[in-house]
Amino acid sequence: MHGKPLTYASAGVDVARAESGLARLLGWLDQTHAFPGAVGRPVLKSGFFAAVHDLGHGLGLAISTDNVGTKSLVAQMMGRYEEIGSDCVAVNVNDVLCVGARPIALVDYLAVEQVQPEMLEQLGKGLYEGARQAGVAIAGGEMAQVPELLRGAAPGAGFDLSGTCVGIVALDRIVDGRGIQDGDVVVGFRSSGIHCNGLTLARAVLLGPGRFTVEGLVPELGCTLGEELLRPCRIYVRPVLDALERTQGITGLAHISGDGFLNLLRFRTPCGFELTDLPEPQPIFRLVQQAGSVPLEEMYQVYNMGVGFCVVARPEAVDVVLASAQRHGYEAQPIGHARAALQGRVALPKEGLVGEGKGFRRN
Amino acid sequence: MHGKPLTYASAGVDVARAESGLARLLGWLDQTHAFPGAVGRPVLKSGFFAAVHDLGHGLGLAISTDNVGTKSLVAQMMGRYEEIGSDCVAVNVNDVLCVGARPIALVDYLAVEQVQPEMLEQLGKGLYEGARQAGVAIAGGEMAQVPELLRGAAPGAGFDLSGTCVGIVALDRIVDGRGIQDGDVVVGFRSSGIHCNGLTLARAVLLGPGRFTVEGLVPELGCTLGEELLRPCRIYVRPVLDALERTQGITGLAHISGDGFLNLLRFRTPCGFELTDLPEPQPIFRLVQQAGSVPLEEMYQVYNMGVGFCVVARPEAVDVVLASAQRHGYEAQPIGHARAALQGRVALPKEGLVGEGKGFRRN
Repeated sequence: MHGKPLTYASAGVDVARAESGLARLLGWLDQTHAFPGAVGRPVLKSGFFAAVHDLGHGLGLAISTDNVGTKSLVAQMMGRYEEIGSDCVAVNVNDVLCVGARPIALVDYLAVEQVQPEMLEQLGKGLYEGARQAGVAIAGGEMAQVPELLRGAAPGAGFDLSGTCVGIVALDRIVDGRGIQDGDVVVGFRSSGIHCNGLTLARAVLLGPGRFTVEGLVPELGCTLGEELLRPCRIYVRPVLDALERTQGITGLAHISGDGFLNLLRFRTPCGFELTDLPEPQPIFRLVQQAGSVPLEEMYQVYNMGVGFCVVARPEAVDVVLASAQRHGYEAQPIGHARAALQGRVALPKEGLVGEGKGFRRN
Repeated sequence: MHGKPLTYASAGVDVARAESGLARLLGWLDQTHAFPGAVGRPVLKSGFFAAVHDLGHGLGLAISTDNVGTKSLVAQMMGRYEEIGSDCVAVNVNDVLCVGARPIALVDYLAVEQVQPEMLEQLGKGLYEGARQAGVAIAGGEMAQVPELLRGAAPGAGFDLSGTCVGIVALDRIVDGRGIQDGDVVVGFRSSGIHCNGLTLARAVLLGPGRFTVEGLVPELGCTLGEELLRPCRIYVRPVLDALERTQGITGLAHISGDGFLNLLRFRTPCGFELTDLPEPQPIFRLVQQAGSVPLEEMYQVYNMGVGFCVVARPEAVDVVLASAQRHGYEAQPIGHARAALQGRVALPKEGLVGEGKGFRRN
């Protein structure tokens, strides 16, 4: 800790370097978009939560890929793998949902240092549970034994888990934020905690000699630290699809994953956002912040801070969204508004933060 | 080497253990198939080269995921990444092709120990080249910086690359081998060499103190060992789609990847196969076999041995398949026949081998 505040870069994830490297990769990939011809061509610019490809028949195929990150290390420390299986579904279906698509299928890619049948059984159970909640079939996948490529929390324990989800959406019902107008309401759906982003930072500040252990009960969390960190990422498919079926007034859908509320800036709209009524973040966020003396702007950049998914809706459609949340047992509340005057920015007035580009700063 | 013949299991990939562990995972995943309802449901049993999901409109969505395996370690040793980018496309599009689908899109998942912009540029170029050859768009992907999960050929060099490909196929034109009849002809398409399977074994027997280096010129290969091992996996999309458009006489399509010609046993047919006219394997295979005293049955189980893709066709459709190959500049030749009497087996009479289940044995 060296007595200085810890930022995400110093905890092992170099975001700026990643951005510049990624730009060189994407420069090539953007040139592939015309290769399939009319059927198969992408209909959205790259960089949104999911890509959409034109399948003909007025039908769009949404596709997105993501991994569970270093949460796999917590699973290894705990010897518990069911949650991470569910997470593999969650991180992908929540992204596909952001274009207004219904997720239908997922394939998983599991790289392991060693095959552990009990671990595979638990992962399978978790994938099943995630698939059940999301209404997707897992009809394929790949397990690669690549001991020379991996390492983990203990010799032989290493693994990496990612997935790819596909969904379908009518081309004339794609949601990408282009219809967002000044005054539209942002409805925030409660997260279950830290989800799958910022685990590198959380582990860096919470675990280690003289700090917490994954087995230790933490009174303010009401559970062990490991249980808190492993808590499955919430799956927002059912309430959001329900709302999409009941109203055409939904203008934006955002999975609040890495980059926190900056994800709202991925919408294809000139509007910015003012979030005035954020719910209290769960205790785990305060624990990370205090243990690592992590600046508040860093916390809001890395973490969901209690809101895992946002639905942007016309004022008259908000009640429909809230009713859909309630019908499916999800906590949701209006947390702010789209604001034309805030072009390209996310303002959190109560927290004294403004986000722009890739970071938050104090107001 | 310890003076004893090297098998795939002793070189670091425990196939039997993987099979049993995987069965426990798949037991859960098979139960997810009904979750999407009518639209989205899988229409093939799991375990084929690609899954196919019913999209309505008579349209099937094919999906498959695979990685480039430990070929990434050779890329790291050489500091050359373009080939591996193309491979990421190849291993996935060739699988999707096996259900008769036209690949349309691919997403890649790249886990890196460190972000290296030059490496990302080369990977991007290779992905672009693969996408161009396959006619797919790469509209999305994920790069994860997970240094704690990875290791590689040198500190910071580690990475793992996988992809997921989707394609479309008319539900009434799905090819899965169920139409294969006794006497159907197997047309073998030439591979470019070792492709992406068996690199663990190849590295184990060829590289190391007192053996070859990746930089060393190997006279019988006509290039350096590294260049030979990195040679991109051939992409069979264009000639095979061309043939599928010209004839309805194609009854089976098999990507000859891990498990070699045993992949023919994935067809939904009671017929087995007799391969009487296999082309001479490329010199790299002899080099691996001799350097490691690898039994011939092991070689045929791990490697493609010169044939990267098989098209099974009615005798009257063979000329169409061969003409499509020639039109697109691919080498292909009839290599054998489907045989009702060989149920569940692949016989290689000239090599004195019979394959069944997961292995070959001497006849």
